[in-house]
Amino acid sequence: MITLDTLNAATPDAFAAALDGVFEHAPWVPLAAAPARPFATVTALHDALMDVIRLADADTQRRFLRGHPPLSAAALAGGLTADSRAEQTALGLAGLGAAAADFTARAAAYTAAFGIPFIICARRHTPSSVLRTLERRLASTEAAERDAALHEVHYITRLRLVARATGPGIPRTTGHLSTHVLDTARGCPAGGVRIELLRDGVLLRDGITNQDGHLAEPLIAGEPLRIGPHELRFHVGPYFATTDAPWQDLIPVRFFVTEPEGHYNMPLLVTPWQYTTYRAG
Amino acid sequence: MITLDTLNAATPDAFAAALDGVFEHAPWVPLAAAPARPFATVTALHDALMDVIRLADADTQRRFLRGHPPLSAAALAGGLTADSRAEQTALGLAGLGAAAADFTARAAAYTAAFGIPFIICARRHTPSSVLRTLERRLASTEAAERDAALHEVHYITRLRLVARATGPGIPRTTGHLSTHVLDTARGCPAGGVRIELLRDGVLLRDGITNQDGHLAEPLIAGEPLRIGPHELRFHVGPYFATTDAPWQDLIPVRFFVTEPEGHYNMPLLVTPWQYTTYRAG
Amino acid sequence: MITLDTLNAATPDAFAAALDGVFEHAPWVPLAAAPARPFATVTALHDALMDVIRLADADTQRRFLRGHPPLSAAALAGGLTADSRAEQTALGLAGLGAAAADFTARAAAYTAAFGIPFIICARRHTPSSVLRTLERRLASTEAAERDAALHEVHYITRLRLVARATGPGIPRTTGHLSTHVLDTARGCPAGGVRIELLRDGVLLRDGITNQDGHLAEPLIAGEPLRIGPHELRFHVGPYFATTDAPWQDLIPVRFFVTEPEGHYNMPLLVTPWQYTTYRAG
Amino acid sequence: MITLDTLNAATPDAFAAALDGVFEHAPWVPLAAAPARPFATVTALHDALMDVIRLADADTQRRFLRGHPPLSAAALAGGLTADSRAEQTALGLAGLGAAAADFTARAAAYTAAFGIPFIICARRHTPSSVLRTLERRLASTEAAERDAALHEVHYITRLRLVARATGPGIPRTTGHLSTHVLDTARGCPAGGVRIELLRDGVLLRDGITNQDGHLAEPLIAGEPLRIGPHELRFHVGPYFATTDAPWQDLIPVRFFVTEPEGHYNMPLLVTPWQYTTYRAG
Repeated sequence: MITLDTLNAATPDAFAAALDGVFEHAPWVPLAAAPARPFATVTALHDALMDVIRLADADTQRRFLRGHPPLSAAALAGGLTADSRAEQTALGLAGLGAAAADFTARAAAYTAAFGIPFIICARRHTPSSVLRTLERRLASTEAAERDAALHEVHYITRLRLVARATGPGIPRTTGHLSTHVLDTARGCPAGGVRIELLRDGVLLRDGITNQDGHLAEPLIAGEPLRIGPHELRFHVGPYFATTDAPWQDLIPVRFFVTEPEGHYNMPLLVTPWQYTTYRAG
Repeated sequence: MITLDTLNAATPDAFAAALDGVFEHAPWVPLAAAPARPFATVTALHDALMDVIRLADADTQRRFLRGHPPLSAAALAGGLTADSRAEQTALGLAGLGAAAADFTARAAAYTAAFGIPFIICARRHTPSSVLRTLERRLASTEAAERDAALHEVHYITRLRLVARATGPGIPRTTGHLSTHVLDTARGCPAGGVRIELLRDGVLLRDGITNQDGHLAEPLIAGEPLRIGPHELRFHVGPYFATTDAPWQDLIPVRFFVTEPEGHYNMPLLVTPWQYTTYRAG
Repeated sequence: MITLDTLNAATPDAFAAALDGVFEHAPWVPLAAAPARPFATVTALHDALMDVIRLADADTQRRFLRGHPPLSAAALAGGLTADSRAEQTALGLAGLGAAAADFTARAAAYTAAFGIPFIICARRHTPSSVLRTLERRLASTEAAERDAALHEVHYITRLRLVARATGPGIPRTTGHLSTHVLDTARGCPAGGVRIELLRDGVLLRDGITNQDGHLAEPLIAGEPLRIGPHELRFHVGPYFATTDAPWQDLIPVRFFVTEPEGHYNMPLLVTPWQYTTYRAG
Repeated sequence: MITLDTLNAATPDAFAAALDGVFEHAPWVPLAAAPARPFATVTALHDALMDVIRLADADTQRRFLRGHPPLSAAALAGGLTADSRAEQTALGLAGLGAAAADFTARAAAYTAAFGIPFIICARRHTPSSVLRTLERRLASTEAAERDAALHEVHYITRLRLVARATGPGIPRTTGHLSTHVLDTARGCPAGGVRIELLRDGVLLRDGITNQDGHLAEPLIAGEPLRIGPHELRFHVGPYFATTDAPWQDLIPVRFFVTEPEGHYNMPLLVTPWQYTTYRAG
């Protein structure tokens, strides 16, 4: 990690070198932002870097965006920068199976239509969300897609920057997902309840509630949430096993994450014959 | 349909003939109950018929129970009384796939262990419930299984009897399953919500709520419910489509029916960010 | 009760005589509407009667409105038509105590300001609502108050008309208020719970829930509800007496009725440690 | 404050002097416990002190209990130890009005019946709870009342001890009462909602929720809660003012505290047309 103070005090070349790779194959971006130093916050630094691209002419933007590797199953095998590879692997496109070929064909159609690769901040999406977004964006226009791509570059580079630079005013790039269980028939927390979290239908985490009805840790924290469908499964059957009628053994709660940097707390209030769930903010 | 009055007034032979098949391959059962006529209610008639079996000696009970066809995939193809065939087809054992062979083997083991076929009132169970019950009952004893089989004969013959005889005091053999949807953010019923009912994971019914938030008809009525897992799916996404965040598109509610003759009303109270469901009795 | 058919077939004079008093001291109103007969519905008849007033010139409207007795504590003692007296007594203005003098002074100020008495459909209001409405309307203008008074005449005469005339298309003039109680810890209705209804802080009804968790009758039906604050009190303490911690003995639920012709069903879902209430439509 | 280490190391006389007044007019209690030192925790010290009384013969216990001033309105004017006076003033018996005379008469009857004053840990009770407890205990027996009085002495002396002595293992003598408000129609905390807390019908605290839906501080913390009826009033009308129908302006939530050292968190989940409240542990 490099501090904002060090970045502010470095020579322009050292500044650009320290940020190499944040903007893919584009060392000219930090060089152009260097004269605007010192920056008071990491957020201000990132804004200045993005402004270099945002204020560039259309040809320069196109060339910059073409420097981004196409997001595809094939691309996962090699040819990406280390950051891109990690981001795309994290997405789990490799697990898309039959959908992968479909994705590759559509991504090629996208590039043919708009002259730039399909760029998306993979760490903020699930595979199903990437496919849905690509489908939707295929119906767009060249100029609108340049803006959309730059908006994704904003998210991609922000995550890369906060992984390297530290200092005051770090932008919020992580989300939070948690839950807890209350037994509202007995007026106390429900301990010992197993909870599973599925994302895009795939099991992501599980845990058992403690005596406060909480899991030992948030289900997700310290990283962006991913846009897409999620499901919590509360295995309350064993908890209520002393009652004779196992009316509810497994309570599924589905929800759709739309804000990767949001705070989602989803409690469950439960009796043997009723439950309530809600977003608690 | 034959009336209780007619049954009460018939000769013993005509009485037994009218009830032929209610007790499988056992015309001696109604003959033995005939002298106790007249019966004030259909329930009293059924109780008297069952008492003939319940008070018989163990050998007679065993012979009677052996008269019941084994419940198996093979059995579905032929050799059943018409009533038995309809009941077993309704269960959907034919759709069990790989589990069918497993069931056949276990049912054979049951007969080998206890000297009687595995008898269960198929119209009160789902396939998964039949398999679970068979598994559990394999660990029982010969005497306990004779009692358990007679308990199932009670349910089987009661359903057959009420399909033929009418009159005062008909026993309750049907259940009720319904739901409705209220929008508690706006304080009004939620109309236009599609609802699906799954049983043992198989889609059984669907419908759209009307302006009162109800379906035009109960999800199930006029027949026994079936012991086993059920799931309601409330497709609330389109209903809330005017709000920008599709937090909840599909709300699944799972529950386990344990009383086939019970009344299950399961409302959904829902806002874009919260829902409550419960058994309303 | 007179039928719409009879009214349609009567001579103009008999028609006007049959409706005498619906429009206070104004037999010319039904006379002017008589030529428009026959009316297909009671609602159409009432609309035609109201149109006579609505389309009259300002002077005629003023004279008509002055024919209405002022609504005041003094007025309750005499000088009202029978209908007016019954309506104002039902309001309970006599029980206003100190507020009655205040009301009388403000009503006089209203007449001084706008040249007409303060007219309000007393059967759709509580005393507190009458006082609040008068306070608010004192800040209005002469023309707006003539409209407001005619709007109240619409409600007053509609109630009078449906009390005399019957036939197809009767306008809805009654509201509905009910409740029921479910024990969502045990999954069944809560019987034996005493419920009180207060209106404007005064006890209006009480009852005990039956085995279905309902009262034998709606709390209010067959008459308009009254605009104003209401409170339900659910005495759940004795119901939960077997649990050792009397966390909740009396659950008060306050709400404000704004639609006298509306349908208000307000269930209570309750456990020893939680409750939910809502408008069920 | 004196440390447990200091108490453990002191001479018996200094030890007794340091604890003077914890056991009212009974310096012999700490003197008798002194040989059992050192104590590992403050709780162990208190247990040892109480054991001196608990293991004493009935006459000694009676003499000790008679050393306690009678809890009465008259007593509040003088003659109490400083600790007793503060405790009884905190109870608010002075505000009992007409009930005070009633209390005085019953307390005298109690002393006449059982030979000891009516002793109760006033800081754990509301006035109504003191009156109810006295009423109930009048129907008891002399031996049971000696035990009940010693049980109250346990609470009284524990509170006095933790106000003077510090060290490891301090017993829990404080409770916690808090709330927060969530808008479950919009899926976010409800800020700006005024909340009042009443105890025994008297306003005790109020506050406005912040942007997290919480009050800046718990409603009660750092002292025992008081056994008795409490009521929260959530003034949600202004919060929902943008909706046209002010269905709910003030939501009252009543509950009965039974555990003065307990943790009571009582959230409100609210929409314009529904609310849920529960004990969250």
